[in-house]
Amino acid sequence: MSIKFYTSQQSIGVASHIALEESGLKYDLVEVDFSQNQQKSGDYLKVNPKARVPSLVLDRGVLTETPAILTYIAQQAHESALALPHDPFDQAQIHSFNSYLCSTVHVAHAHKQRGERWVNDESAIKAMRENVPKTMAVCIDFIEKEMLRGPWVHGKTFSISDPYLYRISSWLEGDGVDINRYPKVKAHHSAMAERDSVKAVESYFTAG
Amino acid sequence: MSIKFYTSQQSIGVASHIALEESGLKYDLVEVDFSQNQQKSGDYLKVNPKARVPSLVLDRGVLTETPAILTYIAQQAHESALALPHDPFDQAQIHSFNSYLCSTVHVAHAHKQRGERWVNDESAIKAMRENVPKTMAVCIDFIEKEMLRGPWVHGKTFSISDPYLYRISSWLEGDGVDINRYPKVKAHHSAMAERDSVKAVESYFTAG
Repeated sequence: MSIKFYTSQQSIGVASHIALEESGLKYDLVEVDFSQNQQKSGDYLKVNPKARVPSLVLDRGVLTETPAILTYIAQQAHESALALPHDPFDQAQIHSFNSYLCSTVHVAHAHKQRGERWVNDESAIKAMRENVPKTMAVCIDFIEKEMLRGPWVHGKTFSISDPYLYRISSWLEGDGVDINRYPKVKAHHSAMAERDSVKAVESYFTAG
Repeated sequence: MSIKFYTSQQSIGVASHIALEESGLKYDLVEVDFSQNQQKSGDYLKVNPKARVPSLVLDRGVLTETPAILTYIAQQAHESALALPHDPFDQAQIHSFNSYLCSTVHVAHAHKQRGERWVNDESAIKAMRENVPKTMAVCIDFIEKEMLRGPWVHGKTFSISDPYLYRISSWLEGDGVDINRYPKVKAHHSAMAERDSVKAVESYFTAG
């Protein structure tokens, strides 16, 4: 099986990148340089016509959307730390958490720099941007109080929810949210940063 | 196994409601009346502190988020039309499609009536609302051209993506998008409307 992984610096692709490192699967990484608008280039649109990252190119075809990519990697790497639980309810809690991240938390964050997805009006884009510290704080507060069991998202067992939350909690400082107000989220972030997978991913782009 | 299903009229809960009807599983439906703000009542917040629908209350606990609920129902009803394919890539395409609906299409729609999720400013909320026909048309055009294989979303085999798309394509008229411009989406909508599961769900609230 060959895996080609398209991603970009600082994007949500980091979550899948960490999962690939955790999985032990072999893959080739292709950087999509957003500073050069490569996500809108003809070559990349053939891979992913959504002009987004990440994309996973497999023998059978292309797979997009972070929750689907994470689940696929977990299924392929069922002897790794990412293995999905056999119990359907436990597995559903992973899908539920990841769905909340993609449909609510990532969307709240995207209103900072991607406001043109939803409006053309400059003053509306500015209003969206200014509100991001508040909406992101509401989301992280909810994760802190209602979701994050600790040390990992779903308790003692690591899962694909952990690289996903790590990527999003890395955005907090830039989003104007003080992670120190959320001790469980902060401890999760620190524990993730100690993992070899995260160190490998974090050094990938800085090492050039 | 007992299943209590919390949902509301016209909401995304319709997708899970159809799936429950397709599944053959027994369940009790509890209506959450948004016109009375019941989703914010103390009783409902104990079920789902997100103040959203749908929620599935099971022996083990509560499950929220449409993609997770649909996947769980499919796993419990593996002899029904909803059964997940065994092949991981085929299964991943279902998760990918559903993830696109929850993170992009439903979010585009939500800018019409739920703008206060992202801004306080009245003029920004108005700008968001006015843009919905355009953003929803872009999403549906993408589904028409790039995703919907026909007759069902993933081809010849029905899946949990089908009730989910049906629910969202039912919003198009109210969102200012003419479904007649998208023949595959329209044919999908019509084929869904013929199913007993959909008829049962559509008549549920109108019958009182």
